[in-house]
Amino acid sequence: MVTTKRYHLAQRPEGVPDDDTFDLREVDLDDPAGGEALVKIRYLSVDPYMRGRMDAGESYADPWAVGDPLRGAAVGEVVDEASTEFDAGDTVVGNMAWAEYHLADAADLQRIETGALPVSTALGVVGMPGRTAYFGTREVLEPRAGDTVVVSAAAGAVGSVVGQLAKLQGATVVGFAGSDEKCEVVEDEFGFDACINYEATDDYVAVLADAAPEGVDGYFDNVGGPITDAVFTHLNVDARVAVCGQIALYNAEETPTGPRKLGKLIETRARVQGLLVGDFAPRFEQATADLAEWVAAGDIQFRETVTEGLENAPDAFLGLFEGENVGKQVVKVGE
Amino acid sequence: MVTTKRYHLAQRPEGVPDDDTFDLREVDLDDPAGGEALVKIRYLSVDPYMRGRMDAGESYADPWAVGDPLRGAAVGEVVDEASTEFDAGDTVVGNMAWAEYHLADAADLQRIETGALPVSTALGVVGMPGRTAYFGTREVLEPRAGDTVVVSAAAGAVGSVVGQLAKLQGATVVGFAGSDEKCEVVEDEFGFDACINYEATDDYVAVLADAAPEGVDGYFDNVGGPITDAVFTHLNVDARVAVCGQIALYNAEETPTGPRKLGKLIETRARVQGLLVGDFAPRFEQATADLAEWVAAGDIQFRETVTEGLENAPDAFLGLFEGENVGKQVVKVGE
Repeated sequence: MVTTKRYHLAQRPEGVPDDDTFDLREVDLDDPAGGEALVKIRYLSVDPYMRGRMDAGESYADPWAVGDPLRGAAVGEVVDEASTEFDAGDTVVGNMAWAEYHLADAADLQRIETGALPVSTALGVVGMPGRTAYFGTREVLEPRAGDTVVVSAAAGAVGSVVGQLAKLQGATVVGFAGSDEKCEVVEDEFGFDACINYEATDDYVAVLADAAPEGVDGYFDNVGGPITDAVFTHLNVDARVAVCGQIALYNAEETPTGPRKLGKLIETRARVQGLLVGDFAPRFEQATADLAEWVAAGDIQFRETVTEGLENAPDAFLGLFEGENVGKQVVKVGE
Repeated sequence: MVTTKRYHLAQRPEGVPDDDTFDLREVDLDDPAGGEALVKIRYLSVDPYMRGRMDAGESYADPWAVGDPLRGAAVGEVVDEASTEFDAGDTVVGNMAWAEYHLADAADLQRIETGALPVSTALGVVGMPGRTAYFGTREVLEPRAGDTVVVSAAAGAVGSVVGQLAKLQGATVVGFAGSDEKCEVVEDEFGFDACINYEATDDYVAVLADAAPEGVDGYFDNVGGPITDAVFTHLNVDARVAVCGQIALYNAEETPTGPRKLGKLIETRARVQGLLVGDFAPRFEQATADLAEWVAAGDIQFRETVTEGLENAPDAFLGLFEGENVGKQVVKVGE
């Protein structure tokens, strides 16, 4: 038996989650029974989609029940197991609780080898965010040489990879990010052609007209709201829009409203399509291998923001909505 | 030389066009010069998209200049020509002025043979509206057997054909129309499985839940606004939305606003695509032939609303926005 600290959903938040949302408990975990593995967690992923799971209503992820442990992708080390394919010492990734230890069905874990990369990248550039970028770019955005592609949340775990993949296809890539410091990273490290600091202007339509004078052929949307409205204004004929996230709206207490934009689609015959990486599960292995190769070759750069300590996981999560992270936000729980 | 009455754009309307929008002039037309044909117009088409051409701003059709003749698809008879492939007496369709006579470049005219059908159908079920339905259904909506398809403006020239084509593919088809009388036509003549009179309820979400209990796999949108919001609420995974028109918004004086719906696309991975029939011009001949065959075989039913007299063309046009037409609205100008 092991005792672990673990976060539970204390109550459903109205609007922005706060201290009353998170309940840190101390719980005892049973020893692994057949087919189970006990994992000592090293890194937790916090992701914007988790906000949707805190609500009772419909989202693209099932809601958590009040009192349930909060869960997400995590990397850890198997410390005990019963009748599984894993050995103590194996490094694994899977959907686990926000906790120090997690008792997992072994079927939900995958052994990982990140080689020269830190194991935390299994939650980022070679993990779900990287694969989201990979399939979203290939299957929905379809950037072509000469295209102008716009990426919102360009400094984030997904957006940073999308922009680099679009560059590899020969597109001109413009990002939106929330500070001058982030824009420097987006331009200098991730190699975007331009980056707009959306905190420095209210007139996104005008700044985008300057940054994308030939209009927008592809838009990868992680944020929604006014930035997305501005990009729609500049869509070209036959543009593609991949809708991956709407982080600007996730904490809204009322149904968010905005200008109606479907008429723009008639004018441009643009295609707007939602994206959920789980649909591509049969192709994850290839995507992960491709991403790892491109990172190793230096074709894809990445950043991580590491928050230390399980007790700081709620702050790390809430920081996503304040744009505090550059690249993938993870929480370091244990060595 | 011939003298004709002809409508010109008197001034750009703010909101709903009115008498001050339309200027009926008496003008003299020259005799045809080389490559021109003088056409005596029999039927004029009035279409919702023309509202966009009255504004200075962007639309999917180029704006008219103030003082320009109003133009649209028309059917007529060649009465004089100079060095063209046409003979006096030929029945032709083309883009012509709202007038009794029009001096056309012969290159802009096509000879038509509607057989047993009235020539006015070249403006409707076997004309541009029919082809819009044809390509929109095949290329964007992609109805499959077992799908539930929703069509707004179901009694209209485009919607009525879309629904029948979706039925031929084995879909269950639900229409929205603006009166009980129209819904009777939609169900009994056009063969839709159900029709919702949107004037009889404000709770489109609830009535659609009843009419489409398995959700919506395909939506063909001619109207925009709250009906479209309600349909989005019911979209199924992998749904397709064809955006063909937004007539509910065309007379808006302010930018129309509404609930933001892109998050629904993540949940469903739905694809939303704008549609402009002109993109399919290389395939018009086949489409027209197919439609004519299906109409002749009784597989596609159609209706026309005929307004008599050129002087009533503005009222016929404005009636589109009041939902006064059933099927294709045309104006009969001459015998």
